[in-house]
Amino acid sequence: MASEAFRPLDDRSLVEYLKSTPSLAEKLGNQFDKLEIKEVGDGNLNFVYIVVSPSGSLVIKQAIPYIRCIGESWPMTKERAYFESSTLQEHGRWCPEQVPEVYHFDRAMCLIGMRYIEPPHIILRKGLIAGIEYPLLAEHISEYLAKTLFHTSLLYLTTTDHKSSVAKYCGNVEMCRLTEQVVFSDPYKLSEYNHWTSPYLDGDAEAIRGDDILKLEVAELKSKFCERAQALIHGDLHTGSVMVTTGSTQVIDPEFGFYGPMGFDVGAFVGNLILAYYSQDGHADQGSSDRRQYKEWILTSISDTWNLFYRKFTDIWDKNDGHGEAYLSDIYNNPELQSLIKQKYMEELFHDSLGFGAAKMIRRIVGVAHVEDFESIKEASKRAECERKALNFAKALLKARRSFHCISEVVSAIRQHDSS
Amino acid sequence: MASEAFRPLDDRSLVEYLKSTPSLAEKLGNQFDKLEIKEVGDGNLNFVYIVVSPSGSLVIKQAIPYIRCIGESWPMTKERAYFESSTLQEHGRWCPEQVPEVYHFDRAMCLIGMRYIEPPHIILRKGLIAGIEYPLLAEHISEYLAKTLFHTSLLYLTTTDHKSSVAKYCGNVEMCRLTEQVVFSDPYKLSEYNHWTSPYLDGDAEAIRGDDILKLEVAELKSKFCERAQALIHGDLHTGSVMVTTGSTQVIDPEFGFYGPMGFDVGAFVGNLILAYYSQDGHADQGSSDRRQYKEWILTSISDTWNLFYRKFTDIWDKNDGHGEAYLSDIYNNPELQSLIKQKYMEELFHDSLGFGAAKMIRRIVGVAHVEDFESIKEASKRAECERKALNFAKALLKARRSFHCISEVVSAIRQHDSS
Repeated sequence: MASEAFRPLDDRSLVEYLKSTPSLAEKLGNQFDKLEIKEVGDGNLNFVYIVVSPSGSLVIKQAIPYIRCIGESWPMTKERAYFESSTLQEHGRWCPEQVPEVYHFDRAMCLIGMRYIEPPHIILRKGLIAGIEYPLLAEHISEYLAKTLFHTSLLYLTTTDHKSSVAKYCGNVEMCRLTEQVVFSDPYKLSEYNHWTSPYLDGDAEAIRGDDILKLEVAELKSKFCERAQALIHGDLHTGSVMVTTGSTQVIDPEFGFYGPMGFDVGAFVGNLILAYYSQDGHADQGSSDRRQYKEWILTSISDTWNLFYRKFTDIWDKNDGHGEAYLSDIYNNPELQSLIKQKYMEELFHDSLGFGAAKMIRRIVGVAHVEDFESIKEASKRAECERKALNFAKALLKARRSFHCISEVVSAIRQHDSS
Repeated sequence: MASEAFRPLDDRSLVEYLKSTPSLAEKLGNQFDKLEIKEVGDGNLNFVYIVVSPSGSLVIKQAIPYIRCIGESWPMTKERAYFESSTLQEHGRWCPEQVPEVYHFDRAMCLIGMRYIEPPHIILRKGLIAGIEYPLLAEHISEYLAKTLFHTSLLYLTTTDHKSSVAKYCGNVEMCRLTEQVVFSDPYKLSEYNHWTSPYLDGDAEAIRGDDILKLEVAELKSKFCERAQALIHGDLHTGSVMVTTGSTQVIDPEFGFYGPMGFDVGAFVGNLILAYYSQDGHADQGSSDRRQYKEWILTSISDTWNLFYRKFTDIWDKNDGHGEAYLSDIYNNPELQSLIKQKYMEELFHDSLGFGAAKMIRRIVGVAHVEDFESIKEASKRAECERKALNFAKALLKARRSFHCISEVVSAIRQHDSS
C-alpha cells in the first residue's frame, strides 16, 4: 500500500484497506463480516476509527492535510503521522506499559494502525473533571517520563545516535511551529485566535500582553524549545493525551514529537494537573461534593509525579552511569561527583518544567485552545474566578521558577494562590 | 566529475582535474603551460595545493578519509569537505570580506576549489609569535563573528529554515565528536593522546583530572555544545584558522562547521589570544624586545574583539528586529523590552564565550593538540611557567565565568594571573 497516493479513508474504504493489509487483518483474526467501526476523532486534527471484530480490535488513525476542526483554511502537514508513529515506536520501546503498540504504519496514507485502548479507559482530563481519583497515575506517568526521556537523551545515547535522531525529527518542524505560535507567541500579543472569559478577564489578558518581565522569561523558554535538542519529547503531554482507568495509564497522540527540552513534557503534564486543580471549585456542588478532598488528591499527584520522576530518572541513570556520552565514567569517576552532576541536572530540569508548565497554563486561559476543565464551568463569572487564580499562579511561577527548590514549595504556592 | 569515485589527487592528476573543470580552468585563464603548484597542507588533516598561472590563481583543498598527520589508523570522514564548503559559502554570503570565495565543490572527490589568500598573508598564530601587531584584527574578526552568527541564528531565520539547516549539519557529527573528545573529555581523564610539559606540569595535569568543580562546569559546556543549535558556527576558530596581513583578515578551515552555541566561536578566538598573551614571556628577548608593549596590544585586541562584537551584533539586531522568529515584533514591542532582551542575550553569550574559551585554553596545554605559541618556547621550564599561568587563569575563568560582567574585568584577571 505504501506506494499509493494519499486518499482519506471512509468507513467503506477502510474495510478494504484492512482486508488488504496483512498485519492489520491478522489483528482482527481475518474476520470482516461482523466488524464494528466507530469514528471517534474528537474533531481537532485527525480521523480516528475504532475497529472491533469478534476476535480482535485495533485503532486506525489517519492524518489529513489540514486541521480538521478548522478546515482546509488552516493547513497542517500530514507528515505528522510519520513523526507520531516514530515517537510511539521509540517511546514504546522504552515504556511499552504506557504506550500503545503500533501494528502498522503507511507513510503515503499517513495512517497508523495501533492497539485499541479499550473501555473503561477514558481521557484523563474527563476523569479529572468528574472528580475521579487515579491512585497509580503519578506512578505510571513518572515511569513513562523517566524511561522515554532518559533513554533518548545523551545520558543514554552516543552523540552519533543522538545527532541522527535530532536530524530526523527536525522534519517535524511544522508541528513545532504550531506550538511556538500557540504557546510562546499568541498569548503575549493581540491575535485573532485568542479568546478568554470576557469581560471578566479582559484586564488580565491585557496585563499579560504588557508584562515585560513575563515576556522576557517566555522568550528564554521559547529559545530552549527551539534550540535545545535534549531528548525525544512527546511534545503535547497534557491531560487530554493520557487515557486512564484506576489501574492503567496510556499515553497517546505524540504527533508533536521531536528533540526538545525534557521540561516541556514534565511541565505540560504538571501544568495541566494544576489547571485541573484550579477548575475544581467550578465543579463543586454546594452540598456533599465540595471537591476539597479531590483537590488534595490532585496536589498529592503533582508532588508524586515530580518526586517519583526524580527518583526513577536518577535510578535509571545510576544503572546506566557512563552509558551515554554526556558524562563519561572515566571523567565522572567518583560517587560525590556523580551525585553533584545529577543534582545539577535535575535542578535545571525542575526549573525548566516549572517554566514550561506555567507557559502551558497561561496559553490555555488566554490563547486559542482552552481546556474542558474550565470550559465546562457554565457560569462565566465562576469560571473566570477559577481561571484568574490559575493565571496569577502561572505568572508568578514562570517569573520566580528558579527560586523553587522542591515540589512541595510549588504545592504551597498553589495553595496560597487558591486562598488569596 | 561529481559522479566519479573518490581518488586522492597528486600534482599530475591535479592538473588534469583543473583542465577538465571549467569553473577552475577559467580562474587560471585556461593557461596550464606555466602552472606553479605547491602543496602546503601543514600536515594535520588535508592536502592543500596552491595553483598559480600567469593570469590567475586558486587553492585546491582535498580531504582524505583519515587524519593525515597520524595516518590511516585514525580515520576521519572525508565528508568534512562538504561541511567545510557549505560553511564557507554560508559564512561568505554574510561576510565575503573575511571568507575566501568557493569556486567549485566536488562532493565525490571531497575537493574544494577556492580563492588563494596570497602573500603577505600569514597564519595569525605565527604573526602573534613573531610579535606583529594587526591593527584591524579585532575589527575584522568581530565583523565576521557578528555577521555569520547573527544571520544563521533564530534572530534572523524562521524556525523552518533554522531546523532545516540544523538537520543538514547534524551530518557533520564525526567532526563534532572529535571536538567532544579533545576539548571536553581527554584533558579531564587519563588518555594516551594527552601530553604536557613534563615533569613541570605533571601535578597541574593531575589536579585538573581531580578537580570536581571544574569537571562539573565542563559538563555543562559540553552539554551546550552537543544540544544547543544556536547558529552555524565555524567550530574551530583558533588563531591558526585565521590568515592576516596588517590590512586584511581571512577566516579559513571551517570543516568543523555545524549548528552549535555561538560562544564556542567567540571563545575559541579570545581563548587563543589569551594563550598568545601568556606565551609572550617565552618569546621575549632579554634586551630591547621584552614584549611588554606587545602584550598590551594583545589585551587591547581581546577587549576590542568582544566590545566590537557586542556593538556590531546588537547593531545588526537593531536593524533586523523581528526578522527572525526568536523575538516577534508584535510581542517585543517597546524599546525598553527590546533593550532588556538584548542585554540578557548578550550576557549569556558572554558567559558562554568565557567558558568555551577557557576550555579551549586548557585542552591546548594538557590535551592532545598543543599550540605553537608555547611549543616554540625551547626551554621547557620557561615554557611550563608560561603554560601554568595560562592554565591557572583558564581554570579560574571557567569556574567563575558568570561573575564577570564585562571584558575589562576579564583583562584585569588576565593581568593578575600574569603577575602572580
